[in-house]
Amino acid sequence: MFQKVLIANRGEVALRILRACREMGIATVAVHSTADASAMHVRLADESVCIGPPKASESYLNPVAILAAAEITGADAIHPGYGFLSENADFAQMVEEHGFTFIGPSPEHIRLMGDKIVAKATAKELGIPTVPGSDGPVSNEAQAIELAHAIGFPVLIKAVAGGGGRGMTVVRAPEQLAESMRMARTEAQAGFGDDRVYVEKFLERPRHIEIQIVGDGKGNVVHLGERDCSLQRRHQKLVEEAPSPVIDAATRERMGSLVANALKKLGYRSLGTVEFLYEDGQFYFIEMNTRLQVEHPVTELVTGIDLVREQIAIAAGNRLSFAQKDVRFQGHAIEVRINAEDPRTLMPSPGKVTTYHAPGGPGVRMDSALYAGYTVPPFYDSLIAKLIVHDVDRAACIRRLERCLDEVVIDGIPSSVPLHQAIFATDDVRSGEFDTGWLGRFLAGWST
Amino acid sequence: MFQKVLIANRGEVALRILRACREMGIATVAVHSTADASAMHVRLADESVCIGPPKASESYLNPVAILAAAEITGADAIHPGYGFLSENADFAQMVEEHGFTFIGPSPEHIRLMGDKIVAKATAKELGIPTVPGSDGPVSNEAQAIELAHAIGFPVLIKAVAGGGGRGMTVVRAPEQLAESMRMARTEAQAGFGDDRVYVEKFLERPRHIEIQIVGDGKGNVVHLGERDCSLQRRHQKLVEEAPSPVIDAATRERMGSLVANALKKLGYRSLGTVEFLYEDGQFYFIEMNTRLQVEHPVTELVTGIDLVREQIAIAAGNRLSFAQKDVRFQGHAIEVRINAEDPRTLMPSPGKVTTYHAPGGPGVRMDSALYAGYTVPPFYDSLIAKLIVHDVDRAACIRRLERCLDEVVIDGIPSSVPLHQAIFATDDVRSGEFDTGWLGRFLAGWST
Repeated sequence: MFQKVLIANRGEVALRILRACREMGIATVAVHSTADASAMHVRLADESVCIGPPKASESYLNPVAILAAAEITGADAIHPGYGFLSENADFAQMVEEHGFTFIGPSPEHIRLMGDKIVAKATAKELGIPTVPGSDGPVSNEAQAIELAHAIGFPVLIKAVAGGGGRGMTVVRAPEQLAESMRMARTEAQAGFGDDRVYVEKFLERPRHIEIQIVGDGKGNVVHLGERDCSLQRRHQKLVEEAPSPVIDAATRERMGSLVANALKKLGYRSLGTVEFLYEDGQFYFIEMNTRLQVEHPVTELVTGIDLVREQIAIAAGNRLSFAQKDVRFQGHAIEVRINAEDPRTLMPSPGKVTTYHAPGGPGVRMDSALYAGYTVPPFYDSLIAKLIVHDVDRAACIRRLERCLDEVVIDGIPSSVPLHQAIFATDDVRSGEFDTGWLGRFLAGWST
Repeated sequence: MFQKVLIANRGEVALRILRACREMGIATVAVHSTADASAMHVRLADESVCIGPPKASESYLNPVAILAAAEITGADAIHPGYGFLSENADFAQMVEEHGFTFIGPSPEHIRLMGDKIVAKATAKELGIPTVPGSDGPVSNEAQAIELAHAIGFPVLIKAVAGGGGRGMTVVRAPEQLAESMRMARTEAQAGFGDDRVYVEKFLERPRHIEIQIVGDGKGNVVHLGERDCSLQRRHQKLVEEAPSPVIDAATRERMGSLVANALKKLGYRSLGTVEFLYEDGQFYFIEMNTRLQVEHPVTELVTGIDLVREQIAIAAGNRLSFAQKDVRFQGHAIEVRINAEDPRTLMPSPGKVTTYHAPGGPGVRMDSALYAGYTVPPFYDSLIAKLIVHDVDRAACIRRLERCLDEVVIDGIPSSVPLHQAIFATDDVRSGEFDTGWLGRFLAGWST
């Protein structure tokens, strides 16, 4: 096992990793920007190194500074957390080349899944269902019409050069296709200087469902069920839960096995999440995240497995400590992300937290680097706490969550606590009926 | 289900009950002495009533004030918590006579187990193993010698009028018995004015092991395994864990079933704990607690069952929500009681808590009514927080506990956190080798 791990991150995830290391008897090195000198992960680590100014590109995203810190402190492994350099294949490779262990997948797998086109092609090859479409530009209308009929309407015409929601046209009926394609091409030419378009199945109201896997790079890959992360705003997850209200045990087992077997073919090592859109009983691959995810605690609560300890043990060369048959799902878990933001404007609200009080009692987990007197700096992600609750079923879990949202105290700055209270007061969320567009529609009509 | 429950207690247990009620959709009434006006349970309750001055006999132990508060607020049930009036059969009866539901066992069962002599006789009758002995005064030395030989040495000669450790003589060999009895009688006569003595088996180094049961008063009683509470000081438990390091699955099942079946014969309703001394593989009944216990969370963590919600549901007339076969034990849990006390002198240390920070992350539960700025009053029990951790096995659980003891911050007053750190640093406690006398011996040699 490692003697000393450098944690190349900040905030709650740095603390999450530090706690796992401490429980495994591993010494910890915190790195921090000058803005984070009094951060909790720095206070609790065995050692800490200042690696640069507040701007992330000069500290948390600076591989050289991080490697130098590892060198100086004699760390033997580096945990990247999530965000920052966690899915940077070049960084993972540099870490290994400098003789440290990167606590994550191989650089090759990070690279493979980092390119969205290659990732989709790989998924398809491995038998993971993807969004049906032309898998490249369509050359003429006849081809597009044939394809659209094969896929079924509605379809989406997407500009090859588009992205981020731009250059997309929804076509609902065959008779609109030719005209829509002409217009889409003209717009694409005008907008991006490239008139190539491709055709894909359009999902009206999909859910976001992702499957957690863990592999040891020695031929063992197991799945830990799904998480439902459909409550998103601007593609940012805000609430995550397990199990999904729409996935039954048979589907869980079928998709979980499918994904685990696919990753087994790759020889995948470490944690990974395969993300899908889900509609009408069908799964459609979006992407794979080759790292620990923000929402991993909901899986930990329903399986009783400590994902971070497992990830560290695997990086140290251990085999998976459990087999698929050992994985049992118990009860329901929900995580809400508490951000330092104005609940009305949704704008970040950094500043000094004058009072902080975490909810307690049974079935409650608070992952947070907050403390009373801490000043949330304006330079980073606004996530300040993850409140995760576990209970026997979804209804009980929601009631427990509500009781915790009533208990938590974060004074001095506004937070998204009132937003979560409003979300869980709706019939849609209480009954589990929502899609990835639900939160956007809700927010459009919401004011505190 | 109840509409409104009055919580006739204070501190962490009042909060524990309040949380359960909230999760069940039940409104709560807090009662408090004038010393507790700003206590957490008062702040979080839906309503609160001041029931008297700080002295417990004039507030928390005053049945009339509590019943009046229930009357005024229109509560339909009263939860007594632990301590105070929780095992007062007359109070339970008064509650029922005034038309409220007492959330606990029937007054008859409280009364039955409240008298230690009757309780032991009842246990024996129900087939629960008790400490072998004369079950009453021995009339002469010949009878004592016969009995002692039947029981086996060492035996204990106890003055009938003694108690609290006074009037007890250990006899290790047959040839000492006659002389010891004469001396014990003389001393008893001198000390208590009553020379009657009885003889009991003496346990050299017993463990304290207790079995949690829950019954619905409708013929169903299940056991939830044992707790090991051997780490005691002056008969006060300080650390509790489940499972016990010395109890295997077969013994758990055997003793659990034996106790559950015995209580089934009684038609027992509500939570109950049957306490034993345990030595050389044998159990010896000490007493039964007819209430929720301080250490109930360790059982909740290893079984996943919410005991307080179950207790409330049963009081409302529900059947047990699970059967014996549904009870599964997972992992290991340890609770440490954090008291407001000087860790060297062990004297209570009430006062103002300037900073309070609870540990977080996976497998951690903090049951506490503390908050930053709260003043611990000098009038009540010094328990200010229960830190309970859960992990896959005992070794992992201890490491998690240690990381939490490092994380917790209680500034302004001394607490027993350093004592817990010292206890868990010992080989004896780490290896699970201790008896009810261990902590006393440890404290005799300990200084921070």
